[in-house]
Amino acid sequence: ELPRFVQPPEPDGSLSFLVVGDWGRRGSYNQSQVALQMGKIGKDLNIDFLISTGDNFYDDGIISPYDSQFQDSFTNIYTATSLQKPWYNVLGNHDYRGNVYAQLSPILRDLDCRWICLRSYVVNAEIVDIFFVDTTPFVDRYFDEPKDHVYDWRGVLPRNKYLNSLLTDVDVALQESMAKWKIVVGHHTIKSAGHHGNTIELEKQLLPILEANEVDLYINGHDHCLEHISSINSGIQFMTSGGGSKAWKGDVNDWNPQEMRFYYDGQGFMSVYTSEAELRVVFYDGLGHVLHRWSTLKNGVYSDI
Amino acid sequence: ELPRFVQPPEPDGSLSFLVVGDWGRRGSYNQSQVALQMGKIGKDLNIDFLISTGDNFYDDGIISPYDSQFQDSFTNIYTATSLQKPWYNVLGNHDYRGNVYAQLSPILRDLDCRWICLRSYVVNAEIVDIFFVDTTPFVDRYFDEPKDHVYDWRGVLPRNKYLNSLLTDVDVALQESMAKWKIVVGHHTIKSAGHHGNTIELEKQLLPILEANEVDLYINGHDHCLEHISSINSGIQFMTSGGGSKAWKGDVNDWNPQEMRFYYDGQGFMSVYTSEAELRVVFYDGLGHVLHRWSTLKNGVYSDI
Repeated sequence: ELPRFVQPPEPDGSLSFLVVGDWGRRGSYNQSQVALQMGKIGKDLNIDFLISTGDNFYDDGIISPYDSQFQDSFTNIYTATSLQKPWYNVLGNHDYRGNVYAQLSPILRDLDCRWICLRSYVVNAEIVDIFFVDTTPFVDRYFDEPKDHVYDWRGVLPRNKYLNSLLTDVDVALQESMAKWKIVVGHHTIKSAGHHGNTIELEKQLLPILEANEVDLYINGHDHCLEHISSINSGIQFMTSGGGSKAWKGDVNDWNPQEMRFYYDGQGFMSVYTSEAELRVVFYDGLGHVLHRWSTLKNGVYSDI
Repeated sequence: ELPRFVQPPEPDGSLSFLVVGDWGRRGSYNQSQVALQMGKIGKDLNIDFLISTGDNFYDDGIISPYDSQFQDSFTNIYTATSLQKPWYNVLGNHDYRGNVYAQLSPILRDLDCRWICLRSYVVNAEIVDIFFVDTTPFVDRYFDEPKDHVYDWRGVLPRNKYLNSLLTDVDVALQESMAKWKIVVGHHTIKSAGHHGNTIELEKQLLPILEANEVDLYINGHDHCLEHISSINSGIQFMTSGGGSKAWKGDVNDWNPQEMRFYYDGQGFMSVYTSEAELRVVFYDGLGHVLHRWSTLKNGVYSDI
């Protein structure tokens, strides 16, 4: 079964959090500017926690729990008071090119109590359940053509067994969830018009489970942009928040206009607010400007998507 | 100079209106269902007036002020109390295939006091100025290849003189405007991923004037869909509200994902709310469900687009 964390909502039952991804560059590529704005918006929204969609440390993760990159790219960057909240993180493919056990190590949490990073797990926050899924092991290319990268597959091999039990765990956890809102977080895209585009292995193996369990949002990183795709078929909203530092300007492909709701090829981050009746998403650029808003209602009040 | 109407805002300075287009089909093609929802939403928002983006009467406009289509497609369709407000209308290409003077005739206003239709004019509402532009005479095809349609160009020929003075009038009116928000309304698309796509003549002749005068929204019909394109270059939002009756399912072309914010190939309409600081747009489908929301702030408060 997936490990669980309990994240108590606000007294009024609501919950606010920020989502950032693909950030760990020791402050470069505007990582610090984005962090500054996250601090301001985080304060405005009185956020309860943050989520990282992975690729936490470039280029190749961290080599040990005592790697200075942990301070240089995390502790000493996200210093605003409002950001001193739990960070629920997943691993990205770049993280898997380093010492994975280091990023999963409780030592990091001793060094910085905000840091929570497991492969796959659930955060229960009453009205919303957030399911964190380890997507890197799904991607064939990292196994078949690793190029000159060395991946740390300890704990993942034998691969099929790992993937099958993960899919089962996620399916069971989703089925058991009584939450009003179900959000799934993973590093890799399922639907994206960005550089990497769709991750076929996730489309085939994970997406059917999300659809069957009527997930509201799938949030990912991996493509260095901010993006919102609204699936016509399943009603799932696919949101990319991979703009924590280096972004890929102009690197965007065609997409069905009926599904494309927002695409920004620069740096920035995302906020999510959930209450009993409403889920609100806002995207911000690296200067804190609001770029895109989307919201939906639930439960009796007509859902507006 | 363009004729002007004064539309007083609410006591708090705000203003709400609905926008519908391409509707006049004696209630068929869901025109009546859309009208029903317009009535409900119009009541919820306590709207001040409505706008039609043209193609008011299919297939060929009306033949005289006493054409029963006026009642069959307008007066007896939009019967909800909330819709008994001024209707500011423009003409579409289908209207120009009928008796244009009939639609411009004050007689219609005697028959139904809501009806206001001139070729081009301005509505001043303090915080917002709305500029209505007669777009059909710009389109070469109606002159060069009218096929078997007969257009009523009375008052338009000589064409170049008409277009030049219209462009000058619109430019002058926009420059003189002191309003917080500038909205331009025309039947034809300037930017659209729909069936007709961009109207090249408007891109060349009208768009530069809108950009020079920092227009906030250009609202049109003509493509039978609901659509929001956010121009990367000029910051103008291009919004299509052409879903008043027959819609063109699946008839959509590619568009740059960085500009495409929303596309719906079905029936529906749009609402706009403006206040001193904020402009809010909402798109609804034919059942009154909210499909897309967009808003922006102004004047010191950072504009979020």
